[in-house]
Amino acid sequence: MTDRAGFQIQPIGVIRSEFKSKVGVPIQTAGAPDLVAELEVFAEFSAGLRDLGQFEYLILLTRMHLAAEESLEVVPFLDAVSRGVFSTRAPSRPNRIGLSIVRLLSIEGARLRFKGVDMVDGTPVLDIKPYVPAFDVRKTDRIGWFAQSIDQLPGKLSDDRMR
Amino acid sequence: MTDRAGFQIQPIGVIRSEFKSKVGVPIQTAGAPDLVAELEVFAEFSAGLRDLGQFEYLILLTRMHLAAEESLEVVPFLDAVSRGVFSTRAPSRPNRIGLSIVRLLSIEGARLRFKGVDMVDGTPVLDIKPYVPAFDVRKTDRIGWFAQSIDQLPGKLSDDRMR
Repeated sequence: MTDRAGFQIQPIGVIRSEFKSKVGVPIQTAGAPDLVAELEVFAEFSAGLRDLGQFEYLILLTRMHLAAEESLEVVPFLDAVSRGVFSTRAPSRPNRIGLSIVRLLSIEGARLRFKGVDMVDGTPVLDIKPYVPAFDVRKTDRIGWFAQSIDQLPGKLSDDRMR
Repeated sequence: MTDRAGFQIQPIGVIRSEFKSKVGVPIQTAGAPDLVAELEVFAEFSAGLRDLGQFEYLILLTRMHLAAEESLEVVPFLDAVSRGVFSTRAPSRPNRIGLSIVRLLSIEGARLRFKGVDMVDGTPVLDIKPYVPAFDVRKTDRIGWFAQSIDQLPGKLSDDRMR
């Protein structure tokens, strides 16, 4: 039963972006690959950034803190019918952890500039991982309900359907 | 300052795998793509699994609970020198969140069978996301220090260097 024990997470940094509300935000970083934002890593974690400038893409794990409600069924931004939340990338999921793949532009001190933005300003960041194609790339055409709507991605923005 | 507030995470399920110790575990699921394991989703989250069977690959976010120590500099399994932890995929990172991309074989009730195993038995699972190439694939040759060692991946196992 210890498997079910909860635990405490401590943000390691925070996103600074142009999006002040959860409405009107790009769906996925791939939907806004040329937008620029910053990640401010808290000073006590900055030693962990060494060697990170060698990478082109980073995986950011975030806390989608503006998703007030966690629900098991949602109508995703790219669909019109209700889906099991684990078959979506919707923010209102248990634990509300987001995954954003971004293109690193520069690191100055503990401030990272990057391209590819789907996070609101003030989003807590939980982890940074280097994107390594040998680990992270899979080829598949089996993308479920996304197949009908994936073409809408560039330019698609969040609306107010999520609580 | 509210950006820095910690928060509580609740596992949504648990991994059942053949690895009972953190030594001798494959490095990344891509290093053991044909091994099979299971994810047991807790009953109260099973409604979130609807539609998930439509996908070939899933992203599992886990708690690498056996990494006793969080450190900002580590000697990664695929290297011999110390690196900033955020430039590695090492378990002993702040918040110890792991990312495993797995190939879904079947879903029976709330039990998922999958291929691609880099998790020890009992690993808490925090989230399940569908893998969607339009969101998740990037092409890059800039993989930093991994460039020297990525060829070792298939068959490489964890050793006892991580606390």
